Amino acid sequence: HKPFKIAVIPGDGIGREVMPEGLRALQAAAARFDIALELTHIDWASCDYYLAHGQMMPADWKAQLQGMDAILFGAVGWPATVPDHISLWGSLLKFRREFDQYINLRPVRLFEGVPCPLAGRQPGEIDFFVVRENTEGEYTNLGGRLFEGTERELVVQESVFTRHGTERVLRYAFELARARARKQLTVATKSNGIAISMPWWDERAAEMAQAYPEVAVDKQHIDILCARFVLQPQRFDVVVASNLFGDILSDLGPACTGTIGLAPSANLNPERSYPSLFEPVHGSAPDIYGKNIANPVAMIWSAALLLDFLGCRPAHDAMLAAIEQVLAHGPRTPDLGGSASTTEMGCAIAELI
Amino acid sequence: HKPFKIAVIPGDGIGREVMPEGLRALQAAAARFDIALELTHIDWASCDYYLAHGQMMPADWKAQLQGMDAILFGAVGWPATVPDHISLWGSLLKFRREFDQYINLRPVRLFEGVPCPLAGRQPGEIDFFVVRENTEGEYTNLGGRLFEGTERELVVQESVFTRHGTERVLRYAFELARARARKQLTVATKSNGIAISMPWWDERAAEMAQAYPEVAVDKQHIDILCARFVLQPQRFDVVVASNLFGDILSDLGPACTGTIGLAPSANLNPERSYPSLFEPVHGSAPDIYGKNIANPVAMIWSAALLLDFLGCRPAHDAMLAAIEQVLAHGPRTPDLGGSASTTEMGCAIAELI
Ligand SMILES: CC(C)[C@H](C(=O)O)[C@@H](O)C(=O)O
Ligand SMILES: CC(C)[C@H](C(=O)O)[C@@H](O)C(=O)O
Repeated sequence: HKPFKIAVIPGDGIGREVMPEGLRALQAAAARFDIALELTHIDWASCDYYLAHGQMMPADWKAQLQGMDAILFGAVGWPATVPDHISLWGSLLKFRREFDQYINLRPVRLFEGVPCPLAGRQPGEIDFFVVRENTEGEYTNLGGRLFEGTERELVVQESVFTRHGTERVLRYAFELARARARKQLTVATKSNGIAISMPWWDERAAEMAQAYPEVAVDKQHIDILCARFVLQPQRFDVVVASNLFGDILSDLGPACTGTIGLAPSANLNPERSYPSLFEPVHGSAPDIYGKNIANPVAMIWSAALLLDFLGCRPAHDAMLAAIEQVLAHGPRTPDLGGSASTTEMGCAIAELI
Repeated sequence: HKPFKIAVIPGDGIGREVMPEGLRALQAAAARFDIALELTHIDWASCDYYLAHGQMMPADWKAQLQGMDAILFGAVGWPATVPDHISLWGSLLKFRREFDQYINLRPVRLFEGVPCPLAGRQPGEIDFFVVRENTEGEYTNLGGRLFEGTERELVVQESVFTRHGTERVLRYAFELARARARKQLTVATKSNGIAISMPWWDERAAEMAQAYPEVAVDKQHIDILCARFVLQPQRFDVVVASNLFGDILSDLGPACTGTIGLAPSANLNPERSYPSLFEPVHGSAPDIYGKNIANPVAMIWSAALLLDFLGCRPAHDAMLAAIEQVLAHGPRTPDLGGSASTTEMGCAIAELI
């Protein structure tokens, strides 16, 4: 095949430390499975670039990335003096929207060797996906302030859900659920409190369920759903949620498996009209940057999801098996109670691939 | 003192089974601490009433309740054929708004004898409060559908935050934090994604923090905050949140202590211009109704919060001590692995008071 074109964007903070390990594993998998890759290294979409150039990305960022098959991304947000609305809305959230990466796919899995904060859970027992809507919903800058600075001040914040945007994420989740063994889909909602958008979201889900009679659908309010992530995580198979609820669930899920630092994410444009983006869920972690102790698993796992998305399932599986084996028996970074460096752990995983 | 006037509304489902135990404990505490109570039993604000009368409450509900010092509430929502927008918006959410119960106070505590889903946590180690804004924010029926029924359909949902509403809940939380030993306040936000209301919420918190130099304030995004409830619950002291975020956190917190069925809540109008309402967090639980096996602790604890709010702190403390003792050593309902009935567990607690 023609080489896959991958844009490599380390970004900020520990993004720069884990990226070399992501690439090491990616290249090991590419060598073993005979996958041709063409990597383009990019230093923008980082706060350092912003501090030097006054913007997060060059004016032609879209043109530069448009021909790529995928983007491997580290982390953004460093130093803290660059405010979120510049660093995040100027890079990550821009990619999601302008490249129409409408699926944010986040696996939740309990591994052997990773201390689980939940009592008595066995590896393998927790294994599900959060499918998060990634372009619309609650994340907007629509609305404003009225009577600003007075006692009467009030703020309106608008959420916008389109039929197009809602149906496609639901469809993706139903398809994923149908392809899995348990065929179970949980739909997050809050229609008993949020009285316009959420009842409508429920209607869309109920309507789509008719096209998937094989899938067992379960609607749960976000409050009790969060509680059940803690109390009965083994019950979940695929969970679909709006942008905000998906954000919450895909931090909470990994926390329940002890793996907030290990969690990967795939920001997908399933039609491949635009490049998809793969990144660790952890951020730039200023507190541990520079010590070469960041856990590289989330980055490597994200690279595995990238290969899976490009059609290389065996390469993904080999990478995940290597992660599993090193977590269980190999060198581990301090967050897992070990004393290995980022590089040591990354090398150990790459060797097994 | 003049007797406190308490409206007693069992509502639906297990609300009717736990209410007698709430009253038994309340009356035991009243007798022991010489508190005069005048109880008014009310059968409306229930779905049965709705099915008989076509509305959840009589037209003069407000007049009937206005003179009360407090409302002790069971649960609402039964049978499922009455939709949420009728049962909830027609009772509970109406009370919160029309009686301006702008604080929803929910204690989170790990008790001896209650199996904790988190590994290795000791009783006493988890002990904090969620202070939830209870009248505005994300819970609105403002917005609507456009291009309904077409491909272009879209839905707008508005959240509304007022300065008045936000400042008073923040002030309550700061005061509560200042009065506690650790003096720590966590402010839930999502200002990196929800771009109008949440940055404004952050500004209000930062502004108010200046008036409370003794309180250590910590701002956390709701996604990572949920993760930390699981990973580091011992860190929290007082957590303040918007209506939606508070709803999520106050189900998640009790789940982390294994006590979703034990959690109480206080819907407060601190100025006492209107009656405040005290209710278990658990709902009407149709699946276990009629078996006399519902755990009465949430109801009894809610009654304790009621007495505390009316100024009877010793009575509250005695009720809580009795709850603690029975949870640790007394008869327990099946949800806690015991075989006691609701009545048996309730009697055991009342006896200790
Ligand atoms: C029933 C529902 C509307 C309510 C809420 O979301 O406020 C409940 O979850 C609660 O927390 O009291
Ligand atoms: C950094 C933030 C804007 C982002 C989000 O909320 O989407 C992050 O939490 C994530 O989950 O990718």
